[in-house]
Amino acid sequence: MRNVLAIGAHPDDIELGCGGTLAAHRAAGDPVTMLVVTGGQNGPGEVAERRAEAEAAARSLDCLLLWGRSRDCAVAADADTIAVIEGAIRATEADVIYVHAPDDSHQDHRAVAAATLSAARHNRRVLHYRSPSTIKFEPSLYVDISAHLDRKLAALACHRSQVESSAMVDPEVVAASARHFGAQARVRFAEAFVPSRFVWDLAPPPQLGLALAEVPTYQALPTDEQRVA
Amino acid sequence: MRNVLAIGAHPDDIELGCGGTLAAHRAAGDPVTMLVVTGGQNGPGEVAERRAEAEAAARSLDCLLLWGRSRDCAVAADADTIAVIEGAIRATEADVIYVHAPDDSHQDHRAVAAATLSAARHNRRVLHYRSPSTIKFEPSLYVDISAHLDRKLAALACHRSQVESSAMVDPEVVAASARHFGAQARVRFAEAFVPSRFVWDLAPPPQLGLALAEVPTYQALPTDEQRVA
Amino acid sequence: MRNVLAIGAHPDDIELGCGGTLAAHRAAGDPVTMLVVTGGQNGPGEVAERRAEAEAAARSLDCLLLWGRSRDCAVAADADTIAVIEGAIRATEADVIYVHAPDDSHQDHRAVAAATLSAARHNRRVLHYRSPSTIKFEPSLYVDISAHLDRKLAALACHRSQVESSAMVDPEVVAASARHFGAQARVRFAEAFVPSRFVWDLAPPPQLGLALAEVPTYQALPTDEQRVA
Amino acid sequence: MRNVLAIGAHPDDIELGCGGTLAAHRAAGDPVTMLVVTGGQNGPGEVAERRAEAEAAARSLDCLLLWGRSRDCAVAADADTIAVIEGAIRATEADVIYVHAPDDSHQDHRAVAAATLSAARHNRRVLHYRSPSTIKFEPSLYVDISAHLDRKLAALACHRSQVESSAMVDPEVVAASARHFGAQARVRFAEAFVPSRFVWDLAPPPQLGLALAEVPTYQALPTDEQRVA
Amino acid sequence: MRNVLAIGAHPDDIELGCGGTLAAHRAAGDPVTMLVVTGGQNGPGEVAERRAEAEAAARSLDCLLLWGRSRDCAVAADADTIAVIEGAIRATEADVIYVHAPDDSHQDHRAVAAATLSAARHNRRVLHYRSPSTIKFEPSLYVDISAHLDRKLAALACHRSQVESSAMVDPEVVAASARHFGAQARVRFAEAFVPSRFVWDLAPPPQLGLALAEVPTYQALPTDEQRVA
Amino acid sequence: MRNVLAIGAHPDDIELGCGGTLAAHRAAGDPVTMLVVTGGQNGPGEVAERRAEAEAAARSLDCLLLWGRSRDCAVAADADTIAVIEGAIRATEADVIYVHAPDDSHQDHRAVAAATLSAARHNRRVLHYRSPSTIKFEPSLYVDISAHLDRKLAALACHRSQVESSAMVDPEVVAASARHFGAQARVRFAEAFVPSRFVWDLAPPPQLGLALAEVPTYQALPTDEQRVA
Repeated sequence: MRNVLAIGAHPDDIELGCGGTLAAHRAAGDPVTMLVVTGGQNGPGEVAERRAEAEAAARSLDCLLLWGRSRDCAVAADADTIAVIEGAIRATEADVIYVHAPDDSHQDHRAVAAATLSAARHNRRVLHYRSPSTIKFEPSLYVDISAHLDRKLAALACHRSQVESSAMVDPEVVAASARHFGAQARVRFAEAFVPSRFVWDLAPPPQLGLALAEVPTYQALPTDEQRVA
Repeated sequence: MRNVLAIGAHPDDIELGCGGTLAAHRAAGDPVTMLVVTGGQNGPGEVAERRAEAEAAARSLDCLLLWGRSRDCAVAADADTIAVIEGAIRATEADVIYVHAPDDSHQDHRAVAAATLSAARHNRRVLHYRSPSTIKFEPSLYVDISAHLDRKLAALACHRSQVESSAMVDPEVVAASARHFGAQARVRFAEAFVPSRFVWDLAPPPQLGLALAEVPTYQALPTDEQRVA
Repeated sequence: MRNVLAIGAHPDDIELGCGGTLAAHRAAGDPVTMLVVTGGQNGPGEVAERRAEAEAAARSLDCLLLWGRSRDCAVAADADTIAVIEGAIRATEADVIYVHAPDDSHQDHRAVAAATLSAARHNRRVLHYRSPSTIKFEPSLYVDISAHLDRKLAALACHRSQVESSAMVDPEVVAASARHFGAQARVRFAEAFVPSRFVWDLAPPPQLGLALAEVPTYQALPTDEQRVA
Repeated sequence: MRNVLAIGAHPDDIELGCGGTLAAHRAAGDPVTMLVVTGGQNGPGEVAERRAEAEAAARSLDCLLLWGRSRDCAVAADADTIAVIEGAIRATEADVIYVHAPDDSHQDHRAVAAATLSAARHNRRVLHYRSPSTIKFEPSLYVDISAHLDRKLAALACHRSQVESSAMVDPEVVAASARHFGAQARVRFAEAFVPSRFVWDLAPPPQLGLALAEVPTYQALPTDEQRVA
Repeated sequence: MRNVLAIGAHPDDIELGCGGTLAAHRAAGDPVTMLVVTGGQNGPGEVAERRAEAEAAARSLDCLLLWGRSRDCAVAADADTIAVIEGAIRATEADVIYVHAPDDSHQDHRAVAAATLSAARHNRRVLHYRSPSTIKFEPSLYVDISAHLDRKLAALACHRSQVESSAMVDPEVVAASARHFGAQARVRFAEAFVPSRFVWDLAPPPQLGLALAEVPTYQALPTDEQRVA
Repeated sequence: MRNVLAIGAHPDDIELGCGGTLAAHRAAGDPVTMLVVTGGQNGPGEVAERRAEAEAAARSLDCLLLWGRSRDCAVAADADTIAVIEGAIRATEADVIYVHAPDDSHQDHRAVAAATLSAARHNRRVLHYRSPSTIKFEPSLYVDISAHLDRKLAALACHRSQVESSAMVDPEVVAASARHFGAQARVRFAEAFVPSRFVWDLAPPPQLGLALAEVPTYQALPTDEQRVA
């Protein structure tokens, strides 16, 4: 069992970048938490609407959802943002962290990637996912999402305000890229990652009793009190 | 008007790598020649069959077809191969050259890329295309093939022996990659290239009379005598 | 006809980086706009003097000139700077954008490059030019400026305050680099670019009536009201 | 359970590059096969001596050992070498393949890496290890060998002819590099890898009965008949 | 004789990155100045304690020590920081400058590297050292510290608050990395550097009288008045 | 005093790549040997003529000249070529080795670079120079040749057959590149190098008596018996 933390700057970034992989983690019984660093204030879409969309998407992927407190288009890779991410890493006892690639034309993506690399400096697994705005990206690690592409697309569809209005969110492209990277990985559909640091765990997983090994189900989204912020 | 030369190690390599771009060149009135360096002796498929498939594909793209004389899986980047490519460059007075990317897991692809870089040392435009076996590939130059994807797929379909038997030739992946690179290029479908050297010609094209400016049509495939080999 | 937008942090940056290419665009009949993001307040030279020099240089290249509103040595790649550049892209309906290379020891150059990559996220052609302070720079796209080097040097000479006082502005080096990159490009003199994204347009240009196809001449520099700021 | 194939040009290359990782695979119950492509004819040490050393090392790591049929310092990345490696991949039904890094000053290492990339073109996991002669090497994937460093050193010690006479085989450096890469990986001792392609398997391993899940023990080294060669 | 300036974000960064090289410079008679940009306010350890530790370390290496005025975890690569570094370069008439590598997960390290590249834009020798938090690092220049490793470790030991509490400062790793890089450099122990720009001086050093050629000894640490700040 | 060995595939390669640096070494009193791996059989120019030109050039730079025994356009990075280079390294007790860059469109340049990296695997200083056919080249180490550019051009002029007939040998470009790289290095004229491995020697040079410290003068070119081949 691995504790998974996925971090994105805006609502929908995580689903676009690694939604299929998160579904695969859930299918394997791993607890997954999503940390969205800003409220997506710059739109398209209203903040309340986008928050509801993100919560629906997290629910559809059966993941916990945390919100940061930075503002859209104004994320800084400073001590505050780093502290928010460090809080999420501690709270989730994260074993593997997914985050934006560092070379991205969106300033918030760059800042979240940099702040995460700083916050995760003691972590053994930090994997960078691709966004439509990513520039250089030479992936070498892949996750087979052939059995999970539909869940990725369903989670993205929850972000109706983006799918309808942003040229960057296009399900046709999402499926095409998954097939493109799948061919690179010698599977059908894949998500692709650049590892900053990935320790491959060869040890046989501890033999858990079946009750524990079952896929946990989250009862509810966290209340505001439970949120790291 | 630009003289175009596309070079590949085996029958179908060129169509996979830049078939849409060749169609776009033809639509713009540029003469296009394809040089296939080996006969594809290692299969799948018989040599005669593959030769016929390649000729059908070239015909469907309305391009000239030349054959080199290396053997499949045994191409060397040596003086002989370089001389064949130099001959094709001279014969076509090539203004732009398309060829495999240098970092590829297929030894023939690497050899053809290296030999072409040597043969084209005085040329101003050498663009590397991607193959399913290419390893590192960071494209920065794209050609919009939205209007030509169907012709690319039709040309590939001519290589029936490959489409049926090689895991590397899959029309689904071809379309997906075109959409993937299209999104990177901010168009619908694109082919992607890594330039070794690309001089962008800003000069206004000479004002040709309409008769001359029309897209030339090749009457027939070259006879053996016309082939550089 | 292509709408061209060249962006630089300080007066003289654009001329140093791509002045010959802008002259080539003008010779080909393309409208060209220069956006200088700061007033060059840190000198050498007074602001008014540098403004006049930049206007003389733009006039000598027959380009429009826009001014941003950032301060020298304090450009941030933030929403404000991005908005200024987005405004210029919209106003010029830019088809091709020239800007600093991202890896540069001058903080303003890095910020302008990053802000431009963000503002131009939907554009199909973004080319990075080199400055004397650029660090890593592996060009693959070139423009032949053999017929335009004199105009580049003349435009630079307009920046008298810089030529006289800055070690970074040296016509001898400008000509040497143009010859150096020219040899790489297999032409006499060239400017060199790293493409972030370059869609090569193969379509034959629409046949314009001669009156329209002639090189347009700007009557006057824009008034303050016309300036995007 | 993963089928592991490790490939090296000379006796001792595999142990130097990934001996600790092979021990970790064995501890996790994975069958491991080593393929040594040449007999190490160029010394130091006699062929028979080196063969015996390699067999002792393989026995100490509890791995199977296969021999290729290339000559030391004359490995070619040609169809023959590729066929030998393809044979080993088929025979072992390899799920993960370890091999030299491609950028290495030893010609045999380069050839074995290139031939393996070709032979493994359909495999989902190809990881490159470092040799003392490797040039560029930017690892991003690590295996924690803190519990296995002693077995790596013991396996290396079997190669007495090398430890005594080759400046490239120095246990002090082996331990230091393991600590150096361990610090990079945030563990104590690690081996470092550059993935050409690594599909991370998130699926829960099938629940095996205990008898099957135990670490298999090889009874004996393969006889010549069992060897792929 | 070369004037040496080493720059680090926090107390202990310089010793970790290039302490052995500074000892080698001193042994060769070169004056060495260390500029610590922040007071290390974020700990572990109190500011006064860390200041005393840094002074003891500088004394043990027989180097001058300067303090910048930025705050720990809040260094900006802005005009202020650049001015501090420019001041130190001028004051020391630096011939060679050592500083953090640009790609580092600590925001202060990135900022100090960027500010130094800006401040040192006219300098001929800027070498980047590695920190435990450095990400990409492909060294090509090395200094043999076999005769100076003990002095490096002694200088580090002065930073008691760090050695005791920071996972990033571990003498075992320091020695291991020195051996690892030493093997790369074909010496016993080495520090490794990435040059941004390194002009190798081939000229025979001026023949100094012996009195001048002796290794200078600093009598005392600079008083506050002597400090650039 | 450093023993210098410069290696090139063809007559004139060494002078083009590092002729000014060799002159600077001679001015500093370092013995310099040039090893030309082939006889330049492919021309332009006859072998005897090219041999005489190379000898005149070596004489003009006051360097020793050795000839390898490979054929032009057919150099292999095999055991034979490696042995020739190992012989030259041993014979000259080389402290620093100059050779082609590995990424070059000329097959002989690639082969000589690879063979040298193999032969020099125990050497501490291997620097790659640029040729007109070099592709990727990101220099970080420079030698100031402002005082030696004229000697470089004079040595090149000895290769009359090349200067007259090869587009790749153009004194105008040589001077321009030296100025271009000089600006990068913050000197007037420079040659640029990519280090594979460069140990910077900080130790004060041994105090030689004046007689010994003088620049040695070679009396004559080596006879055939003295040549390593």
